[in-house]
Amino acid sequence: MRIVIVGASGTMGTYLSQAFEKEHEVIRADRKGVDVQVDITSTESIENMYKKIGAFDALICTAGPTYVGPWKTLTDAQFRNGVEGKMMGQINLVLIGQHYINPKGSFTLITGALTHDPQRNFANASAANAAVEGFVRAAAIELENGIRINAVSPTVIENSPQYFPFFPGDIPVTMHQLEFGFRKSVFGAGTGHVIKPY
Amino acid sequence: MRIVIVGASGTMGTYLSQAFEKEHEVIRADRKGVDVQVDITSTESIENMYKKIGAFDALICTAGPTYVGPWKTLTDAQFRNGVEGKMMGQINLVLIGQHYINPKGSFTLITGALTHDPQRNFANASAANAAVEGFVRAAAIELENGIRINAVSPTVIENSPQYFPFFPGDIPVTMHQLEFGFRKSVFGAGTGHVIKPY
Repeated sequence: MRIVIVGASGTMGTYLSQAFEKEHEVIRADRKGVDVQVDITSTESIENMYKKIGAFDALICTAGPTYVGPWKTLTDAQFRNGVEGKMMGQINLVLIGQHYINPKGSFTLITGALTHDPQRNFANASAANAAVEGFVRAAAIELENGIRINAVSPTVIENSPQYFPFFPGDIPVTMHQLEFGFRKSVFGAGTGHVIKPY
Repeated sequence: MRIVIVGASGTMGTYLSQAFEKEHEVIRADRKGVDVQVDITSTESIENMYKKIGAFDALICTAGPTYVGPWKTLTDAQFRNGVEGKMMGQINLVLIGQHYINPKGSFTLITGALTHDPQRNFANASAANAAVEGFVRAAAIELENGIRINAVSPTVIENSPQYFPFFPGDIPVTMHQLEFGFRKSVFGAGTGHVIKPY
């Protein structure tokens, strides 16, 4: 299977690349460029990435910048970090990618438990995650040729201890659990699902 | 109680204004201007509205433009209708309005069943609704001074028969049911809720 991983240089992307390349052809895409360069906040950059890659069977996105900071001073400008990054960045990967992906291919996006379980300072991520999940359910009834779409929604990740204080009582999701969430989406038959790998 | 209704000239806003003005002071805000003019896609316009209105106890928003149209040709530019309108328009009403609303006041935003029950041609609304609902849950744990926030999430509305063909099998929500949804948010004690008035 030909699998594109967007955000391939990040903690999650690196782990998934190494896990999947044992049995599949993995194409690493990232802002800095690994196999292919992509800035998901630019539709032109996304279009260029797909043109360079050619046909593929699965796209996994692990890239999703959002704004983390105090609520009282939260502004429209700060909120745009998540709107352009985690939300529209991922949505545009699908709107554009549907014209390049192989029949029976799949898109797997990243969201998070903040959709339904908010934490202080993370309102931007709650909105962006929720938007992506609403989009995933809608896209699942629209995509043709057996193309599927799901979101993987972890809580805080074991490899991001800097976030632990913001998620009191949340048991960190291991990288291995996370990998299983993505496996379920890419190699399973479900579509329109929000997969919780814990 | 001093209640601001944004989108006051619309079908929903007109109905709610008439229902609530029997017992409360209703301030009608709208793009065209009724008591006050506001364009919710502009943070400057929102700020000006609040400055003109002064202190208030409840804000109800019934304004939420989104893009309705075929999936296959859906673009980032079309998707921005819902991002700027129903999503960021409503989110900015709260981010800015928190600095003007009275203690124990409430914000009530409008979403819709498309968050979890998508229909063809409405992916933009599914994402925007979901974003607002995620935001409402997050804002509820951040707002201080007893200020509350909820969303009212109807299915298709009885007064919008032009949308009936897009919602096969959905029993239209009556305007009276919708009014009760908003009553629950404004006069009840709940916060962070997505109220389904059916």
